[in-house]
Amino acid sequence: MLTYDLEQRGKLARYDYLYRCIKEDILSGRLEKGEKLPSKRALAAHLHIGVVTVENAYAQLEAEGYLYAREKRGYFVCPVGIRQSGAEPPRSVERREERKWLLDLVGSGGGTEGFPFSVWARLTRQVLAQKGKELLRAVPHNGIPELRQAISQHLYRCRGISADPEQVVVGAGTEYLYNLLVQLLGRERIYGVEDPGYAKAERVYALNGARCVFLPVDSRGVSPELLEESGCQVLHVSPNHQFPTGAVTPIARRQEMLRWAEGGEGRYIIEDDYDSEFRFTGRQIPALQTIDSGDRVIYVNTFSRTLAPSLRVSYLVLPRHLLEAYRERLGFYASTVPAIEQHTLARFLEEGYFERHLNRMRVFYRERRNQVIAAIQGSSLAGRCRVLGAEAGLHFLLELDTPLEDRVLTCRGERAGVRLSFLTQYQCRPGSAGEHTLVISYPGLDPAGMREGLEVLAKLLDP
Amino acid sequence: MLTYDLEQRGKLARYDYLYRCIKEDILSGRLEKGEKLPSKRALAAHLHIGVVTVENAYAQLEAEGYLYAREKRGYFVCPVGIRQSGAEPPRSVERREERKWLLDLVGSGGGTEGFPFSVWARLTRQVLAQKGKELLRAVPHNGIPELRQAISQHLYRCRGISADPEQVVVGAGTEYLYNLLVQLLGRERIYGVEDPGYAKAERVYALNGARCVFLPVDSRGVSPELLEESGCQVLHVSPNHQFPTGAVTPIARRQEMLRWAEGGEGRYIIEDDYDSEFRFTGRQIPALQTIDSGDRVIYVNTFSRTLAPSLRVSYLVLPRHLLEAYRERLGFYASTVPAIEQHTLARFLEEGYFERHLNRMRVFYRERRNQVIAAIQGSSLAGRCRVLGAEAGLHFLLELDTPLEDRVLTCRGERAGVRLSFLTQYQCRPGSAGEHTLVISYPGLDPAGMREGLEVLAKLLDP
Repeated sequence: MLTYDLEQRGKLARYDYLYRCIKEDILSGRLEKGEKLPSKRALAAHLHIGVVTVENAYAQLEAEGYLYAREKRGYFVCPVGIRQSGAEPPRSVERREERKWLLDLVGSGGGTEGFPFSVWARLTRQVLAQKGKELLRAVPHNGIPELRQAISQHLYRCRGISADPEQVVVGAGTEYLYNLLVQLLGRERIYGVEDPGYAKAERVYALNGARCVFLPVDSRGVSPELLEESGCQVLHVSPNHQFPTGAVTPIARRQEMLRWAEGGEGRYIIEDDYDSEFRFTGRQIPALQTIDSGDRVIYVNTFSRTLAPSLRVSYLVLPRHLLEAYRERLGFYASTVPAIEQHTLARFLEEGYFERHLNRMRVFYRERRNQVIAAIQGSSLAGRCRVLGAEAGLHFLLELDTPLEDRVLTCRGERAGVRLSFLTQYQCRPGSAGEHTLVISYPGLDPAGMREGLEVLAKLLDP
Repeated sequence: MLTYDLEQRGKLARYDYLYRCIKEDILSGRLEKGEKLPSKRALAAHLHIGVVTVENAYAQLEAEGYLYAREKRGYFVCPVGIRQSGAEPPRSVERREERKWLLDLVGSGGGTEGFPFSVWARLTRQVLAQKGKELLRAVPHNGIPELRQAISQHLYRCRGISADPEQVVVGAGTEYLYNLLVQLLGRERIYGVEDPGYAKAERVYALNGARCVFLPVDSRGVSPELLEESGCQVLHVSPNHQFPTGAVTPIARRQEMLRWAEGGEGRYIIEDDYDSEFRFTGRQIPALQTIDSGDRVIYVNTFSRTLAPSLRVSYLVLPRHLLEAYRERLGFYASTVPAIEQHTLARFLEEGYFERHLNRMRVFYRERRNQVIAAIQGSSLAGRCRVLGAEAGLHFLLELDTPLEDRVLTCRGERAGVRLSFLTQYQCRPGSAGEHTLVISYPGLDPAGMREGLEVLAKLLDP
């Protein structure tokens, strides 16, 4: 007869402990396949427990396929493989130390100082209190109407874009949206990406099995002449502030791009408007989408850059004629942004906080950019470098006078505690970006604390 | 000389209005390519505005490529295409009316009544107050350590799963995670999905360009004998509570599945543990992952079902040997779940609210299920139907005695205000699911208000 010491069950219920013991005996082979188990009544008497306890244990083992019942004959062991080792309790998370740099020009951090956190927190509390349980219901696949409406109005006011709320699709980050775009437009198409450019876009397309062609970027962005010959069908560009070169595509080229798109079946331009909000000289550059009379432009932008990296809200503006296909193919996807964030962001936009935030940040970033440039020009680097592309965006270029190769400088910097990022790191094919040009992400820099690092950097430039 | 009425500028700045006017003249062709613009000084005098105003307008037009400057000669119109129509202000969101059903057995709503919203709201406020601006920083690609740790501990306590926090990957919904899995495992593989089954999984795989094979489900889930001959390499199953049949895969079959996975290069089992938390008879069925000594199981689960549909948090548990490949291929993706939700959920788990919620909901759902079944058995349907698969999950099956085809009944129901969903709707190939079997999602049903609808349904069953 099966004998278990139920005193050892700790906090477990009796039936649960019995279930575990019998299961262990089956898995370890002590109870063999086909073996008949004692009747419930007999086992209960033997172990001095209630019949119901044995009944529950047997029922669970039957549900999981360890035992089978034969009417009026009792329970038998199923044919089950034998296991050796048991499960161990999980280990804890180990946290990795981040390296402290003397000077970090790559600047993964920063850019969140100006975020009106108390406003955001207040709006979140408001949404929680006012919307209550409504927040638990599933939201439409393309985002809540209030947020799409607010984005549509923001785009009209600030970017001159005329888009109905139904053209807006909200999603958890631009990378996620690129994934959706491949699923919408097709992975059999050829995607043209800027070189040098935003590497993640290319990576997402490639991970989706789409072929990418690289389009060289000059001082005015991608040259439209190359489009036809490249064979690309979907063009991914950032005409308003190219990353990382900072190039602005002039109107004539934009028109040529649009003509190219209209000149072939199923051609589209994905306009990545990332970073365009922070233009420090003159007004913002109007989006390509605003002159797209042929409906070939899919506009993409994100709030992760303008508000906070931890807030994953980005959006698409789809041409009207794609809406039905989108709904049909991708409308089954649940919205990836939680309802609370959507409602909070909608209010943040509606009540004008976002535009005020942008205006404030424009002033803040301009000031910081000036201070960083002043720090460079007040260091031994002065006269050995030129600032480029500083009229917009959260990075600028710094052309260095040095005979050393970029990778040599990067290694030297690494050893000396100066973290560098060169334009050439963003090139897809060798030679598409100039050498000796740093890409300086300045929002996280402390202008007052750069002196030592800049002196170290200046010394690194000599062979 | 260019003449514009600056009184008509409304709220626009003077330079902005002037910029718009000149741009319009260029785009409409009134100013022709190559044409020289008046000098800044001359135009300023002509329009009675400051020179700086003209300067700003010209600079912006130059930045956008409408004008080019020749040193000492002035500004000229660039060659630019001519446009006809201007942008119209966007329209408003139109809201669609949802149909009111006499009886909705498909039940898209419901299931959020028991959510401890005030606790969630309090934890959110706490996180906002205590974490403050820390919440703005980018979070690790796989989720914040606190949440992964809490999930790991929850899995150990409640599902017997031993997974280190570093094996956990948090993402915005299971569909998003399926996308990542295809990118991790490869779209050239063949994915085996259950038939009848959870259609969205198959849809995501297909949208990713992966080939799917359909594996028939019997009362014990997918038969392992079919795995070899199907040619499938990645098996997507829900062995603990198959959707929609409710089948539980017995231990012997599980072991065979694992042997299949270990028997071939690159074979994996995606264990979709959706809905397994709500088992009403006995204990929960242990996850397949707990007996996976060969590390072939990728476990997937979601909080959207157990907490609220609008909360998009799901997670993977990856086998250790996949971690490096995951980081390398997909580690560049930003986390798709906002930091606030991650911290709030981590606390909700750590402080035991989640387990208490599950226990409460188990009681709540059992009660509701019993009431719904009682309502059915108290109606004219009694004696003409059998309840199946009601021991777990948030739906059960109702086999109907009727000679009518499912699609005829669905149409009749539609006309009579009764919304029906049949098992056959979840089949991928004809014949894989039995006819005349309703899938009843009961969390959103009001047992007291079903009488009339059930009587109507009973009448529909006669030819």
